[in-house]
Amino acid sequence: MTTPLPTPAQVASPLGLHRVLDPPGVLPQAAWRLDPSPVIAPNEVRVRVDRLNLDAASHRQLHETYAGDPDKIRAAVLEIITTRGKMQNPVTGSGGMLTGTVEEVGPDSPLGLKPGQRIATLVSLTLTPLQITDGLAAWDGQSEQVPCDGHAILFARSIAAVLPEDLPVPLALAVMDVCGAPALTSRVVKKGNIAAIIGAAGKSGSLSAAAARGAGAFWVIGVVPTETEATLLREHKGLVDEIVIADARDPVGLAEKVEQAGGPADVTVVCVDATGCEGGAILSTKQGGTVIFFSMATSFSAAAPGAAGLAADVTMLVGNGYVPGHAEFALDLLRATPQVRGLFEKRVRP
Amino acid sequence: MTTPLPTPAQVASPLGLHRVLDPPGVLPQAAWRLDPSPVIAPNEVRVRVDRLNLDAASHRQLHETYAGDPDKIRAAVLEIITTRGKMQNPVTGSGGMLTGTVEEVGPDSPLGLKPGQRIATLVSLTLTPLQITDGLAAWDGQSEQVPCDGHAILFARSIAAVLPEDLPVPLALAVMDVCGAPALTSRVVKKGNIAAIIGAAGKSGSLSAAAARGAGAFWVIGVVPTETEATLLREHKGLVDEIVIADARDPVGLAEKVEQAGGPADVTVVCVDATGCEGGAILSTKQGGTVIFFSMATSFSAAAPGAAGLAADVTMLVGNGYVPGHAEFALDLLRATPQVRGLFEKRVRP
Repeated sequence: MTTPLPTPAQVASPLGLHRVLDPPGVLPQAAWRLDPSPVIAPNEVRVRVDRLNLDAASHRQLHETYAGDPDKIRAAVLEIITTRGKMQNPVTGSGGMLTGTVEEVGPDSPLGLKPGQRIATLVSLTLTPLQITDGLAAWDGQSEQVPCDGHAILFARSIAAVLPEDLPVPLALAVMDVCGAPALTSRVVKKGNIAAIIGAAGKSGSLSAAAARGAGAFWVIGVVPTETEATLLREHKGLVDEIVIADARDPVGLAEKVEQAGGPADVTVVCVDATGCEGGAILSTKQGGTVIFFSMATSFSAAAPGAAGLAADVTMLVGNGYVPGHAEFALDLLRATPQVRGLFEKRVRP
Repeated sequence: MTTPLPTPAQVASPLGLHRVLDPPGVLPQAAWRLDPSPVIAPNEVRVRVDRLNLDAASHRQLHETYAGDPDKIRAAVLEIITTRGKMQNPVTGSGGMLTGTVEEVGPDSPLGLKPGQRIATLVSLTLTPLQITDGLAAWDGQSEQVPCDGHAILFARSIAAVLPEDLPVPLALAVMDVCGAPALTSRVVKKGNIAAIIGAAGKSGSLSAAAARGAGAFWVIGVVPTETEATLLREHKGLVDEIVIADARDPVGLAEKVEQAGGPADVTVVCVDATGCEGGAILSTKQGGTVIFFSMATSFSAAAPGAAGLAADVTMLVGNGYVPGHAEFALDLLRATPQVRGLFEKRVRP
């Protein structure tokens, strides 16, 4: 039996394997380099990109490394995208998301998109083929929102959401960037639970606090690192029931303060991108409770023996960025919760 | 109502905070120095230690630093224990475990131990107050097994397991070392599930396969990296229903083979200490299924965006080293499953 050689179009993988250049055979996210060619396979979509939203950890790493110098930061981001065919910070391993306009839809794409629609990608930039054509000239090198021109490719198993018309784009983007957190929090929190949200004044934190409340939490404890953040929460009264100012990296101090505030928690949600928060989160959680780690700074080798060392029978979940319907859920939370919207509007420059 | 001042004994912390000398206020594991005084608080237990089992990384570091000189290595270990009040290698940060005989049990200890029982500690030496009285004279300064005389202190929230009389000590210790995996697997797998065990011929893997079966799994797929490991599984027929030889770091290859073997799985258990297994585990798991990561080599920044990038709605659990009753559960599995016992006996030197 002879098999005709497959054409590139026929072997286009739903996962984008055909775009992986180096090393071959790995998933796009694990690849060092992707092929961002604008020619699409029948199951792909090409998007004209107008904005990147850098992941917070990546953004901070770039700022620290280049001491905030905008030209150096801009050059570094451009260099990453040019070299890798995607925006994946080699140090943090993280990416972000993008917005753009659907330019061409392959006849076999299952994403249901139409040319002309304004969308945001909900898969990470770490696995999205990307090519920039304007040298990021319009970016100030400071904001994590990067205006740009170029194109990106969506695979058959990508996730994209059409941008809502009733919300400013930067606001919708900021919500979608962290929409996995409230969706999973809402799944895990049960009626009558005590929930502790570490980083409650932040984006994923405030949405998770609202999600915990919506799922029936009886008591929501908001943990913040500073008086400034506490003031933010006080100004948006009602999002949490009790505010704790604590260093989440100090397990004993955190757990004591959470307990004084009505804990330990049935569900603790870690929404801060600092290392060393595992022990404190575990210790702030009841035996039989659950910790959800949304921080990319979480370490397995700290979390697992940490729990064992504390004889802590807690379920520890890796925050999955994908829960079906997560974008719509998070946008609805923001619409329905003035405190969340207020906090977002303080953090997101229009 | 007047409250009498608490005595030191009354405020003995379940986590051992009262034994922390330097710096004050941190958890025992993070402390530089613990108080190993033999006088116990009402919630503590004193153990007469007969053997330390040094962690492999610590053992190697000591050997390399002192070029294998037994007297220098012995002096170094003694110096660490004397200075720090615990056996925590200051370079590697790691410890090990110990065996000994229960000497005195405080009236408020919740551990359920009785004087005279031979036990192993399942919390790390890095957080266990320890004093050595024989100068380690019986140790050859070479083996990671250190015969010794002295005492150790267990806190209320320590974990210790009584050594079974029907099993050789090295075998029992090997089981206890990985006992968190089968206990959590058993909790997660439901009747009728398809389970995939990555690293099924290993210690935690074979126990997890038996645990999945015991929890009612309808079909157990054992993934191994080599033909040699596959032969091991075939020689212990019945532990798994189907054997897959695959590189777990190759997501696409792994998922394809798991599917051919009856997958994707409802529950995938990762029991191999290799980096880069996140994508394959996620891709081998059904939408709505669960991945349990027991590997310390797992990376949050691979697992979380990985799932999102694959549009995979899977629950991802960090394997907790502690589930109540885990040691007894694992020992019972080994006793009841000749295949598991056979695999362990091939791997554990008597």
